[in-house]
Amino acid sequence: MRGRFITLEGGEGSGKSTQARHVRDWLRARGREVVLTREPGGTPLAEAVRELVLRRWGEDVNAATELLLMFAARAAHVHGLIAPSLARGVDVVCDRFVDSSYAYQGARGIDAVHLRALEALAMPQIMPDLTLLLDLPPEQGLDRAQVRGDGNRFEAETLDYQRRVREIFLRRAAEDPARCVVIDASASVDRVSAAIDAVLQARL
Amino acid sequence: MRGRFITLEGGEGSGKSTQARHVRDWLRARGREVVLTREPGGTPLAEAVRELVLRRWGEDVNAATELLLMFAARAAHVHGLIAPSLARGVDVVCDRFVDSSYAYQGARGIDAVHLRALEALAMPQIMPDLTLLLDLPPEQGLDRAQVRGDGNRFEAETLDYQRRVREIFLRRAAEDPARCVVIDASASVDRVSAAIDAVLQARL
Repeated sequence: MRGRFITLEGGEGSGKSTQARHVRDWLRARGREVVLTREPGGTPLAEAVRELVLRRWGEDVNAATELLLMFAARAAHVHGLIAPSLARGVDVVCDRFVDSSYAYQGARGIDAVHLRALEALAMPQIMPDLTLLLDLPPEQGLDRAQVRGDGNRFEAETLDYQRRVREIFLRRAAEDPARCVVIDASASVDRVSAAIDAVLQARL
Repeated sequence: MRGRFITLEGGEGSGKSTQARHVRDWLRARGREVVLTREPGGTPLAEAVRELVLRRWGEDVNAATELLLMFAARAAHVHGLIAPSLARGVDVVCDRFVDSSYAYQGARGIDAVHLRALEALAMPQIMPDLTLLLDLPPEQGLDRAQVRGDGNRFEAETLDYQRRVREIFLRRAAEDPARCVVIDASASVDRVSAAIDAVLQARL
């Protein structure tokens, strides 16, 4: 039996990491073996790429470079961790996945034709069984992220950019309701967790 | 007046770096301003990607990951150095470019359709005016590279792999004779330089 692949998506400060741990715990409490991972990252090589892509460089990082680094990390992650875990029957919970590329690099004007070509190369036949989109207004998310204070290159982007990111996430969720569920992430952590529990109960 | 873009291609130990310096000197002696650069690399971000892609990882680096890293470095290089230099009228001499991706990642079984999609994303409208393919039997090149002793991940590949690399280089050169010239790199450094001089004289 193949494991289940569950991803959490959303803007900065939407609570993905906290809720990813909650999903892992929910599955474990039901006797499942679970790997909790994140993107970009998840293998030593992919984590090294993560460091490059989030660092603030003196040079202007163009959209194609950023996109290619994200998919390089993803190819390593799928090949080295996600696909083998699912094949062994282990569930995989991942903090960000391919929807983030559509949202963050799409919001820089990258055409979806390039994104689909990269999907075909980097992640043949791997799509999440369930994607939880933690949605909230970018103003609110950025406030939370600034309190946390890890300040990566994406958080430094304009509010207008963060709004385009949110819009693409919501559009993708609407286009694929069999896979995606939108969760209101503006509520308290406990209320968001409760909303996720209801989705897991209904879908898995 | 746009600068001229000249690339040197070939297997390990074929003398590309030495001859790239020779081409730079030839152009400078004729009053041209020249940037000498290399791939993967050429900007701080691209050099950091170079370090990742040449490192020997504990994990198996799959062909798609390698290819995406190479094109990420290339996109940064084209955007940050090559295109702006050419636009300013400066000549660019580059040790390896896109033919190396066709050869090295193609030899791992990557379909050319993926390579063309990545070209369209990473390097729109940038192709070399002249490519010098330094050709020699892989046995001979690997001997030279081992004497030099920098031992990267590609030099550790099998002889059979290096033969496929050579074959793809030669096929691409044959398909595009307006851009590519094959140079016999098994001769002495001075004789190879003299052969290159003759090509530069005739083509530029």
